[in-house]
Amino acid sequence: MPRQSPKRSERLPTSSAYGRVLAAAVRAPIPLPPFARSSVDGFAVRASDTFGAGPSQPAYLLVAGEVPMGAAPSLVVAHGQAALIHTGGMVPDGADAVVMVEDVQVVREGEIEVFKAAAPGQNVLLQGEDVAQGEIVVEAGTRLRAQEIGGLIALGVTQVEVAQRPRVAILSTGDELVPPEATAMPGQVRDVNSYTLSVLVQAAGGEPIRYGILPDRLESIVAAALQARESSDMVVLTAGSSVSTRDMTAEVLNRLGEPGVLVHGVALKPGKPTILGLADGVPVVGLPGNPVSAIVVARLFVIPLLQRLSGAARRLPAPSIMARIGTNIASEAGREDFIPVRLELDAEGWRAEPIHGRSNLIFTLVRADGLVRIPPEATGVAPGSQVVVELFDPLT
Amino acid sequence: MPRQSPKRSERLPTSSAYGRVLAAAVRAPIPLPPFARSSVDGFAVRASDTFGAGPSQPAYLLVAGEVPMGAAPSLVVAHGQAALIHTGGMVPDGADAVVMVEDVQVVREGEIEVFKAAAPGQNVLLQGEDVAQGEIVVEAGTRLRAQEIGGLIALGVTQVEVAQRPRVAILSTGDELVPPEATAMPGQVRDVNSYTLSVLVQAAGGEPIRYGILPDRLESIVAAALQARESSDMVVLTAGSSVSTRDMTAEVLNRLGEPGVLVHGVALKPGKPTILGLADGVPVVGLPGNPVSAIVVARLFVIPLLQRLSGAARRLPAPSIMARIGTNIASEAGREDFIPVRLELDAEGWRAEPIHGRSNLIFTLVRADGLVRIPPEATGVAPGSQVVVELFDPLT
Repeated sequence: MPRQSPKRSERLPTSSAYGRVLAAAVRAPIPLPPFARSSVDGFAVRASDTFGAGPSQPAYLLVAGEVPMGAAPSLVVAHGQAALIHTGGMVPDGADAVVMVEDVQVVREGEIEVFKAAAPGQNVLLQGEDVAQGEIVVEAGTRLRAQEIGGLIALGVTQVEVAQRPRVAILSTGDELVPPEATAMPGQVRDVNSYTLSVLVQAAGGEPIRYGILPDRLESIVAAALQARESSDMVVLTAGSSVSTRDMTAEVLNRLGEPGVLVHGVALKPGKPTILGLADGVPVVGLPGNPVSAIVVARLFVIPLLQRLSGAARRLPAPSIMARIGTNIASEAGREDFIPVRLELDAEGWRAEPIHGRSNLIFTLVRADGLVRIPPEATGVAPGSQVVVELFDPLT
Repeated sequence: MPRQSPKRSERLPTSSAYGRVLAAAVRAPIPLPPFARSSVDGFAVRASDTFGAGPSQPAYLLVAGEVPMGAAPSLVVAHGQAALIHTGGMVPDGADAVVMVEDVQVVREGEIEVFKAAAPGQNVLLQGEDVAQGEIVVEAGTRLRAQEIGGLIALGVTQVEVAQRPRVAILSTGDELVPPEATAMPGQVRDVNSYTLSVLVQAAGGEPIRYGILPDRLESIVAAALQARESSDMVVLTAGSSVSTRDMTAEVLNRLGEPGVLVHGVALKPGKPTILGLADGVPVVGLPGNPVSAIVVARLFVIPLLQRLSGAARRLPAPSIMARIGTNIASEAGREDFIPVRLELDAEGWRAEPIHGRSNLIFTLVRADGLVRIPPEATGVAPGSQVVVELFDPLT
């Protein structure tokens, strides 16, 4: 099994920790709210002074003053008194409820009529009602979102201990590969997969470490992979799709550590020549060389592994939307198919149009908004069927 | 109408441009693939030499050599000849198809039997089959994902011109607010909303600019807001929820530019005291002071506005998943309700459990995975109903 909890953590300002995974639970150093606050605009009162009040029989109260924003009120609400208070204002001593301004009429300077009885605690957020002092407010393993960051800041927790991002070593192999900035000679192509994989890893909260392009020589790949395994939480080998490079990836994985190759080939399209393994506790993925397959396989295997290594306790399904299929999709039974689709909004809602074209052309995916999964038992999807479209881009 | 296209752009390395919006269309400087490549392991042949070949009547061909990876083959496939080729290898002159290794048997050193006829072009990716030279490969307004970055790198396009991130000025107002690191005295609370809003803006591809905490004095807020309007693409005022602060936000907006306030209050829970306006072409949002409302309203109004200002041509629905409601949700007709829910996986799939508790407590949202929208015409949702849950966290 891959290691589930990251070994290392770091301290960050809370305001910069969005998307990071909390390494240790945080307890509330203070109660929240820190004092009883009004949740409406109105008058702080003793609830018992309003008992029996109604539209035809108001309760008369004398206004003792106004609660200032941002300071403790100096006044005390005595029997028969009320204090003007604004939303968020501190409920003064003596008062135990707030009547809404809509239920009050000012009779004359310094006196009000209350037309509605208030129950004790009404329109008051009690001290500690959100969280009590000492309570665990965010558990270890929580990925910090806007609300966690806001909650921690409300408590004055301005620094947090977060798990370090999982490091993903990326090794490209192939005698035909050249770096992006190089001039590709006939027979050569640019290394695409280590860049697409890097951005996917980064977007998913990992730290990609590119080991560059290695020639197709077993010894040099094994040497680089051993080094990568030592300094990373996961190793990804992106190699060609030919039988010989696949065999070499498997051989590298077996020489990298125990138990080595676990899965060699998956019933998946695109992505059949995927290799999965484990080398002395470090997960290793051999990605197909085809750039489209590499993206699909990275989403299916690399990203979920990364999430597991991130220390995040909770995992939700991939963001998706429901759409209906525009045109028929054929699929082979016994194999999981992932069909790139483009989403179009029409009068009936979102329609998913399959992208045609060869599955190994990367610009096919440029036209696609997401993938539709066809399960192994299905032989296709009829037009008009509702399908789940897993979105490529989480930004909306 | 808010300005739809950003005025400024910047040049970035393609590999660092994930999530950014392309400012100008990119044309392919070379065709892709740059040369005819084999899509399988096999033998490059003249298709006509295999016509009529079948399991019982193989075609016999002489092996002229092997195509090296990463270099143009020096050999030419003549009539009656074949060349060993690997996936991704450059198809040699003379050959117009590749027969798969599975359909071939080596008779003796240098001679093969082909058991299946190949059509011209079979198992060959032609030069320019993915994109032709000069073709627009990524349109202006495209938000760059892994596939666009991979495609551009394949073409050797290592720099791109992208729209600058929309700048969102965030002004907090309230006499009761203190910064996160300050000790909050009785009556004071920490400024939460400018931090939650900052992380939401940043995650959505914007650049938050915090103008700090301003006291509740009209003139100083107007002065700061004017400065913010000049140097930002959008202004967000986060104020208290009291009538007086709401009125002050509206007054600030009206003094900021034409036409001023457009919407004052929305039929929404949480989020009723929202103010929307436009000041001399710059959209301005007045967020409710309650931190939960502020997050909901930011998702509903600030983020979509930001997307519009980003220059992105295409907008997809918010990432969501389908789930069934665990317990009954009540809702008032005539008002849109957003109910925080927690997702639980059980035997029947994902179940959305409404989070109970007061809607103005921020830690309510810490327990929630997303929001369920109850449309204005509905009065609630019965247990077991399928609902769309908009996810808070796009990471899975």
